Formats: sequence, C-alpha cells, structure tokens
Amino acid sequence: MPIPDYGNRARCLVRLMRLGMPVPDAVALSVAAVRAIAAGQMPDVASILAVFGADPVVSVRSSPENPAWGGPGTVLNIGLNEKVCARLAEHLGEDAAAEIYARFVQSYSVHVARLDAEEFAACFQPGIPAAESRDLALRTYELEMEEPFPQDPAVQLGHVLRSMARAWEGTTARLLRQAKGAPADAALGLIVQRMALGLGPGECGAGVMQLVSSATGAPQITGRYQSQAQGREALDGENGVAYLTRDARGPSLQDICPAAFADLEAYAREARRGLRDEVQIEFTIEGGEARILDAAAVQRSARAAVRIAVDLAEDGIIPREEALARIEPRALTEMLHPQIDPRTQRDVFAHGIAASPGAATGRIVFNSNAAQASAAQDEPCILVRFETSTEDVRGMHAASGVLTERGGVTSHAAVIARGIGVPCVVGASDLNLNPREKTLTARDGRVFREGDLITLDGSSGEVLAGAVPTVEAALDDAFVSLMEWADAVRDIGVRANADTPADAQLARSFNAEGIGLCRTEHMFFEEDRLTVMREMIFADTPEDRRAALEVLLPMQRDDFAALFETMQGQPVCIRLFDPPLHEFLPSGREAMLDLAEALDLPVSRVVSRIEALQEFNPMLGMRGVRLGITVPEIYEMQARAIFEATIEASRNGDPVVPEIMIPLVSARREVELVKTRVDAIAAAVRTEKGADFNYTLGVMVETPRAALRAGDIATTSDFLSFGTNDLTQMTYGLSRDDAGRFMSTYVSLGVYPEDPFHTLDPDGVGELLLIAAERGRDARPDLTLSICGEHGGSPESIAFCRRAGFDYVSCSPFRVPVARLAAAQLALTDRVEDRKIAE
Amino acid sequence: MPIPDYGNRARCLVRLMRLGMPVPDAVALSVAAVRAIAAGQMPDVASILAVFGADPVVSVRSSPENPAWGGPGTVLNIGLNEKVCARLAEHLGEDAAAEIYARFVQSYSVHVARLDAEEFAACFQPGIPAAESRDLALRTYELEMEEPFPQDPAVQLGHVLRSMARAWEGTTARLLRQAKGAPADAALGLIVQRMALGLGPGECGAGVMQLVSSATGAPQITGRYQSQAQGREALDGENGVAYLTRDARGPSLQDICPAAFADLEAYAREARRGLRDEVQIEFTIEGGEARILDAAAVQRSARAAVRIAVDLAEDGIIPREEALARIEPRALTEMLHPQIDPRTQRDVFAHGIAASPGAATGRIVFNSNAAQASAAQDEPCILVRFETSTEDVRGMHAASGVLTERGGVTSHAAVIARGIGVPCVVGASDLNLNPREKTLTARDGRVFREGDLITLDGSSGEVLAGAVPTVEAALDDAFVSLMEWADAVRDIGVRANADTPADAQLARSFNAEGIGLCRTEHMFFEEDRLTVMREMIFADTPEDRRAALEVLLPMQRDDFAALFETMQGQPVCIRLFDPPLHEFLPSGREAMLDLAEALDLPVSRVVSRIEALQEFNPMLGMRGVRLGITVPEIYEMQARAIFEATIEASRNGDPVVPEIMIPLVSARREVELVKTRVDAIAAAVRTEKGADFNYTLGVMVETPRAALRAGDIATTSDFLSFGTNDLTQMTYGLSRDDAGRFMSTYVSLGVYPEDPFHTLDPDGVGELLLIAAERGRDARPDLTLSICGEHGGSPESIAFCRRAGFDYVSCSPFRVPVARLAAAQLALTDRVEDRKIAE
Repeated sequence: MPIPDYGNRARCLVRLMRLGMPVPDAVALSVAAVRAIAAGQMPDVASILAVFGADPVVSVRSSPENPAWGGPGTVLNIGLNEKVCARLAEHLGEDAAAEIYARFVQSYSVHVARLDAEEFAACFQPGIPAAESRDLALRTYELEMEEPFPQDPAVQLGHVLRSMARAWEGTTARLLRQAKGAPADAALGLIVQRMALGLGPGECGAGVMQLVSSATGAPQITGRYQSQAQGREALDGENGVAYLTRDARGPSLQDICPAAFADLEAYAREARRGLRDEVQIEFTIEGGEARILDAAAVQRSARAAVRIAVDLAEDGIIPREEALARIEPRALTEMLHPQIDPRTQRDVFAHGIAASPGAATGRIVFNSNAAQASAAQDEPCILVRFETSTEDVRGMHAASGVLTERGGVTSHAAVIARGIGVPCVVGASDLNLNPREKTLTARDGRVFREGDLITLDGSSGEVLAGAVPTVEAALDDAFVSLMEWADAVRDIGVRANADTPADAQLARSFNAEGIGLCRTEHMFFEEDRLTVMREMIFADTPEDRRAALEVLLPMQRDDFAALFETMQGQPVCIRLFDPPLHEFLPSGREAMLDLAEALDLPVSRVVSRIEALQEFNPMLGMRGVRLGITVPEIYEMQARAIFEATIEASRNGDPVVPEIMIPLVSARREVELVKTRVDAIAAAVRTEKGADFNYTLGVMVETPRAALRAGDIATTSDFLSFGTNDLTQMTYGLSRDDAGRFMSTYVSLGVYPEDPFHTLDPDGVGELLLIAAERGRDARPDLTLSICGEHGGSPESIAFCRRAGFDYVSCSPFRVPVARLAAAQLALTDRVEDRKIAE
Repeated sequence: MPIPDYGNRARCLVRLMRLGMPVPDAVALSVAAVRAIAAGQMPDVASILAVFGADPVVSVRSSPENPAWGGPGTVLNIGLNEKVCARLAEHLGEDAAAEIYARFVQSYSVHVARLDAEEFAACFQPGIPAAESRDLALRTYELEMEEPFPQDPAVQLGHVLRSMARAWEGTTARLLRQAKGAPADAALGLIVQRMALGLGPGECGAGVMQLVSSATGAPQITGRYQSQAQGREALDGENGVAYLTRDARGPSLQDICPAAFADLEAYAREARRGLRDEVQIEFTIEGGEARILDAAAVQRSARAAVRIAVDLAEDGIIPREEALARIEPRALTEMLHPQIDPRTQRDVFAHGIAASPGAATGRIVFNSNAAQASAAQDEPCILVRFETSTEDVRGMHAASGVLTERGGVTSHAAVIARGIGVPCVVGASDLNLNPREKTLTARDGRVFREGDLITLDGSSGEVLAGAVPTVEAALDDAFVSLMEWADAVRDIGVRANADTPADAQLARSFNAEGIGLCRTEHMFFEEDRLTVMREMIFADTPEDRRAALEVLLPMQRDDFAALFETMQGQPVCIRLFDPPLHEFLPSGREAMLDLAEALDLPVSRVVSRIEALQEFNPMLGMRGVRLGITVPEIYEMQARAIFEATIEASRNGDPVVPEIMIPLVSARREVELVKTRVDAIAAAVRTEKGADFNYTLGVMVETPRAALRAGDIATTSDFLSFGTNDLTQMTYGLSRDDAGRFMSTYVSLGVYPEDPFHTLDPDGVGELLLIAAERGRDARPDLTLSICGEHGGSPESIAFCRRAGFDYVSCSPFRVPVARLAAAQLALTDRVEDRKIAE
C-alpha cells in the first residue's frame, strides 16, 4: 500500500508538532482525498469536525506537493454561526464578534460561494456598525443564493473543501502552476486546523517571524506583528503593524509581549534546526501565548541563499553537500557582476527600477538584431526597448545590459535579465524612447543615439551617460566557503576564457584554474597595431610580411608576458591567429583613402586588395590554420612571442608551460605543418636565449571533420578543445550572425527545442563531441579534452563534458563560479547514484 | 621459387612464337638479370650470343612490365664489325654494307658510349660516300674514346646491355615513368633478338600493320612499309614509305609483295586472337618472307577503345565482362560532348591544335580563380592561358573549355583537358593574349575581352566568336552495346541531375534512370519570372506573397509538366526552393532604381529591404527549408505546381510519382512541418481536380547534423539524398567559393590528398554518409538512399555508394555513361572477388 501523500505544508506541520511546538490541532486530507473531492466524492466532514470538539472554528489551508506551485488561498473562521458568535461575544464583545462573523460571511460568499465581491464590499462601508455589516452580509448572501447563510459548520466546511479542491483543478490555476514547472497532475493536500483566533482579551494577534535577512541571509530577526488580527494577510496593511524586535520607529512585539517574543524566537530556531532550513514562521498569540500555524522557507535573494546554506552547514544542520545542492548555479551570476565605483561622479540622466543587479556599460542599440550583431563583434551594448518580449531574449543574451521604458520588477525584461545575470533597469519612464528615429531623450533634453555609450546601475536603477569606472563584485565569506566546498567535490576542471590581463585578473578572482582560451586577434585591433597589421596584409613578399610582423612581435610578447604573470604559473591556452585578414581592412571609401595615404599606396591598389580579400562566406573561408599555413609568417611571429614571453615570465615566477592551440583544423596534416614550424621556432628561441621551456600544442575542434578525424589528429596533438560555437554553426549549417532572422520562429515552432547557440545540442553537436573524445583518447590516452565555446559554463554542457570524460570546461570569467558549483552538484549527484547502485 | 619475370614484350614474343609466327630467335633477360646488370654484375654475354651461332647480328629491345612506362630505345645491328661487314658486302654490295656499319657505329657511339651526337651527324653530310662515312665514324669513335671501335660482338652486346639497364635506373627516366603511374621499383626485362636485316636482295624492308583505325576502332588495315629499311624508326620519314593496302596515292606492300602482305594480314589476325587485343605488329621482310618482330596494343582514342573492346567481345575473343573492364570510364566523356552544328555559319577568329574533342561555348576568363568563380555561378566560361600548369587544373575543371596560345597535343593543357573531357584548343599562336589588360587580339584585329562569349571546337581546333548551335554527340553502336552490357551487370541505379526539359532530354539520351536532382530555383531567374519573384519578396503579408506566387504557379506547373513528359514515367526528384531570397535582388544602385520603379516603391524601401536581406554567411543563412518554414507560401505554391503537373502528365502517359526533396534540413521537425503542408496541398489538389496521384517526400542531406540525425529524420522521410557539395563545405568548414585562394597550396602541401570538392573525402564526409545510411536504414528498412552532389558520377564515389548500400547515384547528364560503366566495373570486380573467396 502506498504511503498516503498529504502535501508539503502538512508534512511541515507534522514536523513542527513532533518538535513539540504549540501547533493547534489539525486534520490533513490526503492528495487522494482532495482528488476525490474535486471529482464529487465528499469525505465524512462531520467526523473531521468531531476532532475539534463542540462548536469548532477551523481554517483550511492548501498543502501542495511543492510550495512554489501556489494553491487556493486559506479560508479562516469556518464554523462561525449565530450560536458560536453569541458565545464569542462573551469574550470579545458584541462588536468584535459581529465583525469577525461579517468578515467570514464575506469571505465565504466570495471565495466559496463565488458571489460578486463588489456586493459584499458595500457591506463594509466606513461608518457602518459591525452588527449592521454582519446583517447586510447575511442578507446579501441570502438574496444571491436564495437560501440563508449555512449555520451548520459541516456544511460550511464541505463547501470550503470542495471549492478549494476544484479551484486547484481549474484551467487557469493549472496553467499558472505549469508555468512554474509543475507537472500536469500536480498534487494538493488540504489541512483543516483549529483556528487560533488572534482576537480577544489579553495580548492576541498574528504575525510572521524569520531569523535572517531575505536580502543578505545575515542573522536578523525580521517579521511583523499585529494585535487583534488573524492570518498572514492582516500584515499587509500599514496601520497598527508592529516590528518584532525593539525598534525606535515604532512599537514592537518584544515590547508588547516579551515572553511570547522569546518563545517565538526559540520556536523559530527550533524550526530552523528541525526543518533544516531558514523558515518564516506564521504565528498567532492568544492571551499572550504563542501558537505556531505554519512554517515556510524564507524568500531569499541569490546572495541570501548562499549565506543561508553555508550557515546551515556550518551550524551542523545540513551537510556541506546539501548546502551545495541547494544553490541554483545560474543564480550565482547575480552576485558576481561588478558595481559602479562608489567614488565615481555619476552623470545620471534617468531613473528606473533596479531589476537585475550589477553595472553595465555599452553602446545603445534599439533592437535584438543590433544587439546580436554587436555581440558578434565583441562590442558591449545596452539593449533599449519599450518593454521586452520573447523575441528579445536572444538580444538580451547578447547585450551587456537591458534598459526598458516600461515594466516593473516582475516584467519580462526583469525576470529574464535576472535569470541570465544581465544588469537591467526597467520602467525608466522619465525617458522618451523613439525607436524609429533611434533616439532616447532624457527629461533634461539630452538626446542619446544608437552607438552612444551609457552605463546602467542595475542595483540602484540609475542610468548614466558614458562609461564609468566599476569595482568588482564583493564576494562574501559565505560565497568563498561555498566555492571551496564545491571545489572539494568537483571532478572536472574549470578555466576561464580571457583575452587580456584584465580578463585574466577577473578569472583569477573567480578562482579559474587557468585560461582555457586566449584569443589573440583582439590584440591586433588596437590602434597602433592595426596600421602595422595592414602593412603586413599589403606586403608583397614573405620578407616584407616578416618586417611588418617584426614590429608586432614585441607587443605580442608583452601581451603574453602580462598574461602569464597574471596567471602565476597556471596554464594558459593561447589560440593562434584566427580571423580572416579582411576584418583588419576598412570598408568605407574615405577610410580606404586614409589607408592608401598611410601606406603610401595608390588608392586603386588598396581597393583591389580589399576586393580580392572579400569572401562569400567568411566563416568558411581563409582564416584560422588556413591562414597559418598559407601565410606562415603570422604564426611564426606568434610562436616566437609566446616563447619569449614564456622565458620572461618563468624568470620571475613559476615556470610557465604555454599551451598553443590551432584554430579551424580539418585535417591532421594541418597540425603537422604548424607543429613543424612552431617546434623550429621553439628550438631557435631556446638557442638564442639560452633558456629552456616546455609547451604543448593542440587543436581547437571547430569543424565536424576535425571531430570525426579526432583519432588521427590526436596523434600529433597534446590536447583537443572544442569550440562549440563554430562547431554548432557548421553542424547545423547555420551562421549565428544570420540565424537571428528565424531562430525565434524555429524555437516557437519546436523545430529546435532550444536555440543551439545557448544550449548545447546534445544530439548533433554533442554526438560529435562524444565521437571525438572517444577516438582522441583511443589514439592517445593522455590526451587533454576540454570545451571552450560559449556553452562552456552552462550546467548542461558541464554535465555533458563530465560524462564524456573531459578534463576541463572553459567559460567567461563571470560564469566560472556557476561552472564550479554546477560541476560540484553533478559530482554529488553521481555519488548518490553510485551509492544507490552499491546498495 | 618465384617464376622469373621477363617483362611484357618478352611475354608477348613468347606468345607470338607459340602461335607459330616467324619470330626471329631471341633470348630474354629477366628483370632480376637486368637489375644485376645495372648494379654491375654482367651476365655471360658470350653464351647469350652463342644461341645465335657464328658472327651473330642482334638487336636489344626493352621489355618493361607495363608498355605504357616506356623504356630505353631499341639498339639494332649489334655484332657488326669489319669481318661481318665484309661478308654482308657480298649480299648487299659494298655501299650498303658500309652504310649499315657506319649507322651502327653512330648509334652505338651516341646511345651506348654516350658520345656527342653532333660529332657523328657530321660524318653523314650529304654527298659523302658510305665508306667515307663509316671511316669517319670509326675515327671519331677512336678519337673520343681513345680506343678502337670494339670488334668483339660480346663486348658490344655487354656495353649495350649495361647502358640500357642503367638508363632505366636513371633519375630522369624514373621521374618520367612515375609521372605515368609506374611504381618506384618498376621492372624492366631486355630481349636480345636475331636481326632480321630488312636489307638485301629480293624484297626486303620493315613495316608496321594494324587492322583497325586508331581514331575510330573500325576495321581498316593501317600501317606503313619501307623497302630496304630497318626498325620502326625508319618509318617516321616521308620518303619511300609505302602504304600497306593498295592505294591510289602511292605504292603499297600489297602491290610490291602480295604474298608477304597476305601472310602479314593473317599473322595480324592471328595475333589479335592470340593476344586478345587489337595489336600493331612490327615486321621485317627478308627476301619476300615476312618476319614478326613485335606486337603491341594499338594506340586508340576513347571512341576506338570502345569499338575495339566491343568487337573483340562480339568476335568471341574476350568475354563481355572483359570488354567492360577495359574501358576507363572517365575516357567516355570525350565521346559525349556535343559538336558544332555542321550547318552553322562559323565566325572563326583563330586556329589552333584540336587537343580535346567537343564544342564549348562560354565567357572568356583569364585565370583559374575567375573560372572557378564563374562555375560557382553556373556561368559557363572558357579559360584562356598562355599555357597551363598544375595550378590551373582546378580552373580547367571549372571551365567549359580551355584555350591556350602555346603548346602542342601533349602539352599540359591538352593532356589534362582530354583526361577530364573538357574541349580544348592549344597552340592558337595567331592569337595575341594580354593577361594584364585581359584582352585577346585576333590576327584580324578584333579584340575579345573578359566576359565575351566565344566557342571552341576541340575537334577541329577552331576558335569562334560568340555562341553557336551545337548538335549532340553521335553515340555509335559499339557505345550503345557497351552501355547495354554495363547495365546488365550494374547493381546501383544511375540518374541525372537535370533542371530543364533540355537537360532531361540529354539525360534520357544517356539512358539515365530518372532525375535525381531537379533544382527549381533556376526557374525563377528567367526575366519574366524574376519581377514576380521580387514582388513576392517585397510583399508585406502572406496574402500579398500568395498573390505574387499565384502568378508563378502556372509557369512552375508547366516547367514540371514538361519535365515529367520528357522523362516518360521515370522518377523525377524535385528539390524545393533552396537559395536565399537576396539572390533575386539587384545589387547596383541603378538596378535598385529600376526595381523601385517596377514595383512602384520608394527607392529607400528597396534599398532597406535589400540591406535587411544581406547575410554574413549566405551559405549558412536563411535558405532551404528555413525559408520554407518561415515563408511557407513558396513551398505551398511549388507543391501545388508539382501535383497539378503530375495529374496533367499522368493523363497523357505513364502515371508520374514525383519525389519531393527538402533542402538544408538539420532537424526532423523541419521535415514534419513541411510534410504537413505538402500533404494538405496534395489533399486539396486531389479534391479540386478529382484525380488521384502518389508522391514521396524526402530530405537532401547537406548538413552534418542531418547525417548524424538520419535515424530520426528517416522516420518521416521516404528517401535521403546526399548533397555532398554542401555537406563537404560544412564538414570541412570550407566554402567552395572561397577555397580557391588556398586549395592548390593545400593539395600541393598534401594537407588534403585531393580537393574534396572533386574527390569525395572518404574519411570525413564519407563517414557521415555511412553513419547516415546505417541509421536511416535501421529506422526505415525501405528508405531510398542516393547521392546527388557533384561527386555523384565519379567512379570513387560510386564505389563508396555501392559499399554503403545506396540505391542510386545522380550526376550531370554527361557523366551518366561514365557512372554506368564505372558501376558495372565495380560490380564485376566484386563478382571476381566473391569467386576468389568462394574458391
């Protein structure tokens, strides 16, 4: 026989009772019973009420399987009728008794009998005495229902139970909870509990209490209390609500009823220990005595969640493993974003709602396509919209920050931005957005246009003109502890993608175990280097090319030396030059003229060279190793720069072992040819400098063919690192830059379950990864395997890489903590499963 | 003990002897013996000579393992010395004896002793008596060698053998024959044979005879004869050479010596039967008696090769299977090219050497890159070069014809063009080519520029201005028989790629078993349709798009109806619309203006639409099924056109079962979505027309993901056809249009063993084909599998497709016969191997 299921709240109440807390008597209806009620089979209501003795007054609360799914609202005071009220009047006085009865009739009529709420609101107009309100309410009920208000508590309870059971099955409720991830057959139990009235002589009232701050998770007794009140809802108002602890701003429970306060604090601590989480207790005080009605996990920010979990573990309440398991890895990104430097002079031109924390600077774009185009060029941008919708999600992923004119803290923009950890300000209604003109006008008349730099403070809701200095996120002790615990169980490496010493510094601050991808081409776009690059491109002979590259060599060497020094002996994987050369040439007529002057060449020569370098499909053209083989001087210069920097950095600290990665490989021979040259350069540098060093050489697997031929390629490679971005593009035959036009249609039609550029495609791209991993390791058991595409930091890809036996994942610095935690959770899940199998 | 190997010519001689032919005595030196000679170990020369009795006069010929590899030239008259010459003088007279001795001394000095040929040419100046020439030659030898001319026949023979053995091992000889495919250790035997002098009283002389025309393979006794002459070389001159058969143009052997002629003809027929091939016999007549010195396979054109093989089979000399095996499939293309219509007025502006047959019309291009770019746009071109070299091969593949200013019939251009079946005229030296100016100036002063249309007649060597009408190749009876025999053994289908009724007609004439790929987009580029296409592209609503497509519908329907009627019930596989829409829009400013006027739209609207449709990587963008799903009206119109044409064509003939193919699929759901719409259109057309029809729906596998997911995709597809061109591009991450820049470097460095766009990559792309075939058939055992990329017709890909269990290959119409023969050969090879295994 299966154990009956009563839902989460019922289980929680049982635990509280077992802990010896003063919980009013309760009867739980099982999930099966509630289903039966919804189907029309009522339980024996009278026998339920019998538990509570004569003239019972009870409440009914919902007890869904998962508290996050919500459920029908609590109904209080069931059982009130003429007779009970007459008796209550003895305690509470006539007015109070009439008031509570009137409120019950109203609540029952609206929520159970489903009568028009407006009609009943009229019964409670200001100035109407309580007895009159009661009579009005009773009459209204009778008029609408064509029968008197039921006096039998069993009839009342029966209707309440049926109404709540059916509300749970209603279409709207089902859709709402399915949106929160509930299954179609989500389970609901119900709890019938003796009312603790919270009314009457002595100190009576209702309140909630929790021991920590929801914002930070730090210890802080928080909550509200109201005398002569019932239920959680009573606390929502402003009038007469007291603080819990002594407070200069107003009255407090600690002052009003110190004994009850002390009991409650003790109960809350007990509940925390017993329920193994920070909880908010709901309580009633009757004649100075505390009663516990409910306890629910406290609402918490990501930061608080970390603090709570770590504190629970440190208090010995939960094991560290459980602390790790309780944090949603993606939520960590919220904590990691830099903040605007507090010492900065702020040029604020608009205010909105702080919807997703962190500071972001970028150029204004007005639609998602522009955001993606900008991201494709590694140009940070701020996406500015009236409000966002599903089709903006890709643009939001691409943007550094999101600003909307409309919407609140639960608007689409706010929810999505927090989910993906992008700073966001919503409802900046003092701005005037004109997407046609592509302008954003501030109240002070300043006009910002597409391409203008602005900064968002997602933690304060301010919008600032220009770029401003930022400081890194303050990573508190709890965070550091959690990460340490994660690292202790994690069984796959986590590195960061970092192109500059600043990136590398960030990677270190997030404890990345090295750099998994350093793209070198960015280094050539800096103003002084670009001219030399162009000279190189216009060179007619290898000698002329070498001469130009000779100028770049010391700059590259310094780039690498700085990177090595920042990483202090941790591994650094450097990808050799990858983009097509035409990316370095100007496109406008005027810029071509400038270039012709700078290079002292006829314009026609510049134009024809630029035309000659144009490509139909640059993604699939002359770049990566193809350039490395046909214009070998570039890789030669880079190898020399790497080796000279290696010697330099090793002199000052730990010996550096650079990892050199070849992009866009499709055949083993490409690796052999590059390896031959790189080895020769290494030998030459060793001789010239009289210093020794080691290095490894591997391949960035980006073409399907490289994946299929991994066994062959591994014979001449020390490592394979999967560039899943390009690999996805080629496997699908789908350019990321061009996919924006139809990706949202595709995802909404279910053609692709997810955008494969966001979530690693496990079937196509994933299979290529598995094939390559297996063949590579077969050919070379010590082959290092990793992933360095943008998928690298996502929990799904980490799961995939662990199963495939990869050595590490590499992701953007901000995703490093996410990856560390996700990896730990996966390792823990495996342990549990291993244990299950062992049992 | 291994059987000693004597080389091909020795084996042939032995067979001739066994056939009872009058072959002069001979001693064969084995390959091992020749190797020993080259290494300095001489055989017992005296005992070889002993075979030929006292005062022997012998020749030495080379006997390589494969006659195509060439070998050192024959040395005649070895053994001549004072004494023998004195005896010869009795027969031949003093002068003749002196002459032959002098010639021997010259030949020995130059070819064996390696003395300067110039010195000896001087001995034979006109007017010098024979005896004086002899004495001069002997003195020159003595002066140069500082010893008298050797009188001992054994010494002479020894030196000849050593010289020939060493010449074979020389670097130049080795490189030359390796270029012809010979292995590094290619084997050579030598034959020492009694001289049949061909000089003396009675009818004496030398000649060659074959029974067929080398050009056509038709029966025709062909050859030359010269009285009082020795060896094959004597026939090269013009003077005194006689025809074989009676001939009005001059003397003939049939007249001079009818008995010897009759004998020779009989011997030739006997040799044909005994050697199982058409051979050219080399003979000597001595005193009216024919002697047979050698027999070698006749030189033959592709056309002659087919005729010879078919005739041998029909005469019962070889089995049909062997006839099939003897024809190199690629050589067939030479026979298949159209010829210039003989009724055409020819505007010839240059003459050259007819180097590769067939007529070709195209626009002038001056380098290989331009040829490839032109081919990528399906624009036929004529590649014009001074001469060609290895780096032009890709351009030659891409060109419709090749024209060179320099070079002869064995120049690089001529050899390659014949090999790949491209019409070619070489050595058109009356043209003035200026590749810098990109002009081609005719002797009459006319200047042709890049982009101008010209026509080559590769069969006559003429170069014509403009395009001219052509007639299809005349496929003779032998060709038809060979193809029938091929079809009888072939076990894989061969279809043609054909977009138009004209293509389809050509496909039928080459007996293609249907159309494997009909690209529909070409149909939209015709002038009247392009405007409607553009209207469709500029339509704002699905209704407006449908209205534009409504106009295209009857045109498409007529296209398909014509195609179905041409194919007379054979299967036709139609690929739905594939290219990106921007291909249909103009690019120049002026053309945009025109379009704006035509569509009655503001120019800005036209410009912005064109800009919006631009793509970074069109190959990987919004095309194929992606367009079909996001703009579904196009596929709906096409499906309707196909079905209506099906009903129409089925009314007039065999029922048509169209095959509808979806391009660029990467996920099963794409197929499902298109299938739902196509099925709905089919149902609608059936109802509207009150007629029934069947059709199949399948997928063009062009993305690596479609290959990997073939099992999934096959569940909703009737067939999978591999578009190996795009699949290669995506598997390598390599755009065909952009690869030209480095492909020759890549192939020459051995990065890729072959250009993967010419030869199917068996390791990467091939593996995807195998994976897809296996998974597809697992999911759906009746799945039809085929290949329709440009690789389709090559013997290598056919071999691959047979092994993978494909149903058919589809290739350009001209390659259909190649494919049919190659498939037959592969089936035969398998049979032989099966038999071997069975044994």
